[in-house]
This record gives sequence, C-alpha cells and structure tokens, in this order.
Amino acid sequence: MENFTFYSPTEFVFGKNSETLTWKLLKKHQAKKVLIHYGGGSVIRSGLLQKIENQLKENRIEYVMLGGARPNPVDSKVYEGIELCKTENIDFVLAVGGGSAIDSAKAIADGSKYEGDFWDLFDNKAKIEASLPVGVVLTIPAAGSEGSGSAVITKESLGLKRGVYSVFHRPVFAIINPELTYTLPMYQTAAGIVDMMSHIFERYLTKSTGVELTDRLSEGTLISIMEAARVIFKNPTNYDARATICWAGTIAHNGSLGVGRVEDWVTHGLEHELSALYDVTHGAGLAVMFPAYMKYTIDEDVNRYYQLATRVFGVERDENNKRGVALLGIDKLVEFFIEIGMPVTFDEIGAKKEDINFLLNQLEINRGFPVGSFKTLSKEDCRNIYLLACL
Amino acid sequence: MENFTFYSPTEFVFGKNSETLTWKLLKKHQAKKVLIHYGGGSVIRSGLLQKIENQLKENRIEYVMLGGARPNPVDSKVYEGIELCKTENIDFVLAVGGGSAIDSAKAIADGSKYEGDFWDLFDNKAKIEASLPVGVVLTIPAAGSEGSGSAVITKESLGLKRGVYSVFHRPVFAIINPELTYTLPMYQTAAGIVDMMSHIFERYLTKSTGVELTDRLSEGTLISIMEAARVIFKNPTNYDARATICWAGTIAHNGSLGVGRVEDWVTHGLEHELSALYDVTHGAGLAVMFPAYMKYTIDEDVNRYYQLATRVFGVERDENNKRGVALLGIDKLVEFFIEIGMPVTFDEIGAKKEDINFLLNQLEINRGFPVGSFKTLSKEDCRNIYLLACL
Repeated sequence: MENFTFYSPTEFVFGKNSETLTWKLLKKHQAKKVLIHYGGGSVIRSGLLQKIENQLKENRIEYVMLGGARPNPVDSKVYEGIELCKTENIDFVLAVGGGSAIDSAKAIADGSKYEGDFWDLFDNKAKIEASLPVGVVLTIPAAGSEGSGSAVITKESLGLKRGVYSVFHRPVFAIINPELTYTLPMYQTAAGIVDMMSHIFERYLTKSTGVELTDRLSEGTLISIMEAARVIFKNPTNYDARATICWAGTIAHNGSLGVGRVEDWVTHGLEHELSALYDVTHGAGLAVMFPAYMKYTIDEDVNRYYQLATRVFGVERDENNKRGVALLGIDKLVEFFIEIGMPVTFDEIGAKKEDINFLLNQLEINRGFPVGSFKTLSKEDCRNIYLLACL
Repeated sequence: MENFTFYSPTEFVFGKNSETLTWKLLKKHQAKKVLIHYGGGSVIRSGLLQKIENQLKENRIEYVMLGGARPNPVDSKVYEGIELCKTENIDFVLAVGGGSAIDSAKAIADGSKYEGDFWDLFDNKAKIEASLPVGVVLTIPAAGSEGSGSAVITKESLGLKRGVYSVFHRPVFAIINPELTYTLPMYQTAAGIVDMMSHIFERYLTKSTGVELTDRLSEGTLISIMEAARVIFKNPTNYDARATICWAGTIAHNGSLGVGRVEDWVTHGLEHELSALYDVTHGAGLAVMFPAYMKYTIDEDVNRYYQLATRVFGVERDENNKRGVALLGIDKLVEFFIEIGMPVTFDEIGAKKEDINFLLNQLEINRGFPVGSFKTLSKEDCRNIYLLACL
C-alpha cells in the first residue's frame, strides 16, 4: 500500500428534499453574496432554479445568476464568471447542475481569487493558493465533481482540455437529492454511469500491491452501480436505485477508492481528446475508450483483470485460463455498456480513424509521452488503443 | 435508503513515517500550546512519545504532557486534563495512542471550552457547542475514534459509561503509520479487529432498505479485515496487512459504511456494561456479545444474515435452507474469533451469570428499555442475549 493523504472535508447532505436546505448551508458558510452558476434549460424547466432563488430571497441572501455552463466547460464562461464575481463582490459560488456547472464554478472560484489569467492555474504556470468557497446542488450523478478536488476546463481557442487537482476544489457542501435525477434522459443517465465506473477503473488498474481493501470496495461499488442501473432502465423513478447511483458517483471520485494506490487516468486523457474534437459526451467517449484500453493492457496484469472478471462480472473462475476469463470480463463490460445504450466504437460517436494522428498530437501537447502508470504508453501504444476503439 | 448527512472533515495522513509530520500538521492548525495526551508505557517504550516531543521542541511548539489515559477512559483523567488545559492556556489537544487516549482527549477538549461540569455533555444535560481542536497519532487500530465523532467516557463513581456523538469530536487530523502497530500484542491486535468488525455489524444489521451499496462496501471491508488478520497472525510485521487493518478500522467508524441506514448499537450497549463491571477489553467483550446477539436476532431478518454468511463467510448458498446457512455464518464468525484468540463466552472473560441482573439494571440506567432498532429489545430480550453469551 502506498502512503497517502485522504482529506474529503465536503459536507454531503443527501436525500429527499435536501435541496430545501440550500439557504441554511449558505448561511452556515457565511455567504453574503452568491454567484449561482448553472447550465442549460433543465434546471429552469424543472423549477429547481426558481426554488433556490426563492429560498435565497426569503432568507435575504444576495445573489447573481450565471447560466450557460455547458458539457466540457469552456474558458470563455469562466472568464465571464470571474468578471462577474469581481464586479459584484461575490463571496460564494453555488453550482446547480452536474459536473460541467461544478467544474466551471470551481474555475470561476479560483480565478476570482487570482490576480492573473485563471488559465495559468490550469496550465501549470501557477498553483492555486486560494479560492472562493463552492457549494453544490447536484442534478447529474456522473463526474463526481461534487465531492472531488478535480476540475476540467477546455481552452477553446487552443483546443486544450486541462484538469487540475486542488484541495481548494473540494466543495464545502454538496446537496444531493436523488429525486432530482428522475427526469434525467436515459442517455445522460447512462453516460453518467459509465463516467463513475471509469473513475473506479482508473484507480482499480494499478501496479500498487497490498490494496485488497480498496479493491473490494471498488468491486462492491461497481456491482452496485450495474445492479442499480438495470433497475433504473426499467423504472426511472426507483428512489433507491437513483440514490445508489448518486452516492456511488460521489464515492467513485472523492478519493476513497484511490487511497494507497497509484492511479492511472490515461483513458481519461485519451477520451478528453475525443470530446474536445467531437464534443461527444464524456461518458459516451469513455464507453468507447475503456474496453479498448483494457484489451490493450490485459497482459500488463492478467491476475487483476481476472479478479475483475470473476468478482464483478460474474465470469466463472478458471485458474487454467485466466487470460480467457479476463477477456470475458471485458466482453461483459462491453455488453453492459451496450445494454444501457452507450456507444462502444469510434463510428458510433462520429469519431474518424483518420483523425487519430490529430488526437495523438493533441494528447502529446496536453500530456506528453509516455503517459500512464498501470502501463507506460508510447504514442504508438496510444495509436493502437485508438485503433482498437475503431473496431 | 434513508436521508443522511456525511461529514468527515478529518485529514488522514497515512503511511510509513507519517508521524514525522506531526509538527507540520500542528502548525497548519495554528497550535500554539499543545496538550499531549497518552496512555501507558508502550508509547514511551517505543520512543514514539520522545520523537514527538523532539519535533515540537525543534519547531518551537509549546506543549504539556498528560499520560495515564486507560482502557475504558474515566472521568477523573478528563477532569485532570481540563484543569491542565485551563491553567496552561492549551489551544490544541494531541492524542497519542488508541481509542482510550483519543476519547479522553476529545472529552478534555470539550470540557476546556465548557463552563460547567464536562459530564453534563455526556449525560444529555448540555450540548457540545465548542471544543478545542484534537489531532491524533494513532498506535492502536480498533476504536476508529481517529476518524469518528464518537467519544465514550466512564464515570467511575456511578459506574456509568456514556458515548456522545458530536461533529466537534472529529479530529482535525489523524496520523496513521501502520508500522507503529507492529509491536502491538496479539491479544490487543485481535481485540481491535473484533472492535472494528463490530462497528460494521452495528451498521450492517439494519431494517433500512435500498442499502445494497453500503452492504457491499461493508462486506468487502469485513473480508479484507479477516484476510489481513490471518496474515498478521503469521507475520506481525507484514506492512500491507497492518495497513489494511489500520485503514479498515478508520473507515469502519468514520460513518462511510453507515450512510443511508438506521444504525443499531445495542450490542455495544450490552458490552459496555460488561467492560464497566469487569474492566474487560472492549473488543474481547464484543467477541462474547456479538455472536449471542446475532443468534438471538436471526429471525428478525434471515435474508440479511444469509447474505452475510454467503458473501462474507463463504458459506455455500442454499435458498431452501436460508436459516441454516445464516446460522453457519455466525458459527464461522465464532470460529474466526477463536482463531485469533478472542474469548466467546462469559466464562472466558470472568463474567458471571449471577451478575446479569446487575448488568441489566445498569443498561436500564444508561440506555433505558426498550433498546435497539434492528430488533427492539426488552429487558427480557437482553437477559436472553446475556444468557446466550454464557453458553
């Protein structure tokens, strides 16, 4: 087991009607003037945004609205938010939505406390030393940003997608009402499920030893996610299944499943280039990339893939054919992705084989080669993985 | 799944040599004058205490020492600590040791910020509204107090043992170096293992539904604990096994396995009376009480016990004989306790059948009847459980 620090100071308020406590949590954190940052129409249509506005009005908490956070959130919206925070003397950023609104909110919070160009903080030019507090009302279980220290922003003009980890990115509170996810379209529900499963895979696929405990926690979470997904696809308003997905999405990325292990994150890197170029939903891109990555790296640790196949995907044990069992496990994962309506090939997301060179060049700019820790990957390795994803 | 709040703001610094960072964490939390609270001779003999003193001296952090925290920590030591904190203007309490030192430190921290008698806070007469910050250097994985909001103190003159939950009881940091546990006697290692398993059972045995995710997290943790225990009993200096036990002990009680479920804690109540009367090690008392409690409550939810038996204890599935399988699971638990040298009957801990009336009366004073949520227990039910523990 590797040495680690685990620090997850977010207060999670989870359950039915929990969003009605937003004002109380804002008061608890001495919010005087709040930037409410959100995405598109769904939080307006559902009435959620109006309810939150009403709460703030009734409790005399000043606020300013900023909508328009979009999937793969972009720097232009962050600049707009920072400007607003500075001119309006905002002291708290409240994200209402999913990972895009939250990540965008985190970057806005960073930039509001930074003198220079906020992109410095995402481009390794400066370290985040302060940030406004961020709170969350979650509507999309997927990115896990409500409980993580991560934020990913795309610089549109350069086509760069960069993620930064900081303890300042951990929201001070996160309100999670599973009922708010009942109306989430099935495609988005499924993409969220792939996203959270991928957050676990990025940690599960490790060379660190002595990690049996987090292996088992990860396997239990994966099984629960798939079981709950199948319930939701029959009955989208099953509370317990929605709640399971919501909480699984949070713990999949708050660090608790990564303690004591070297994490990988190469597949996220491979996918980031896809969604930067084609603007495909992150989870859908991951459904395409993860099976390819797994097949390509299976011989890096057949035992680990064998463990995954037998413990999570219910493949029968066969000590004499571990590689075969391991491959069957990956097949089962692909079957599951297809079952929940996710794409599993380049074609299905409109990605083109002839763009692979461009994707690799972008990956080189964003990450540099070699990449990866579970298996160290050269540019050629990554090309092979993209090619596998075309099949 | 029940609504819940999960808030675990402790910074866990885990791994080899992590205790060398004590001074840094104290500085981070602006500690000016520290009360170092510890138990008996082991932290002195190992040189740990001296190392920590040296760190504080070198980094010009003032401190005062208070030893003598003992298992089932008592009010007299708490009063002594509070007096010391007040006269010495202590602003930070550092516990070095296991659950006893930590719980005692928490109560001292409470009392130092309370005008009246600290016992009011443990006797439901007043609510904890403030407390000094508490940090931990852990040497005994068992109680989970390093990551929990719990503290249990015994008022000796009245023979009362009372636990209080408060968010103020969550340490601001906890340093956990598994190597510090290499020299822990096997009896204490085993008692700690029973303690952490019991913290999981108290949450696992619930009537709450829709809790499949935390069921699986709990089951995975239980399996990992037992596997690691068996390694330690062969090789006490196996780092990964010690690390697994250390981290399992923390997550078993930081709340992460209890989210969304009504917890029980009756068996802890039954055991508290045993250890108050006989001064038996808490974990050893739990090894006696849990199998008895489980056998008595098996019909409350045979399916849950069947799940435990098949998923955790490896009993073969038999849908036609769920009760039999469930009972076999409890037998396997007893076998495991015996394997690691724990007592499993009244006799083995020097407890007497003829004291059961006294135990029940004390339980009535401390908890009142009925008790329990998984199964609501009358005084007669509790008598029956104590009687089962005599067999």
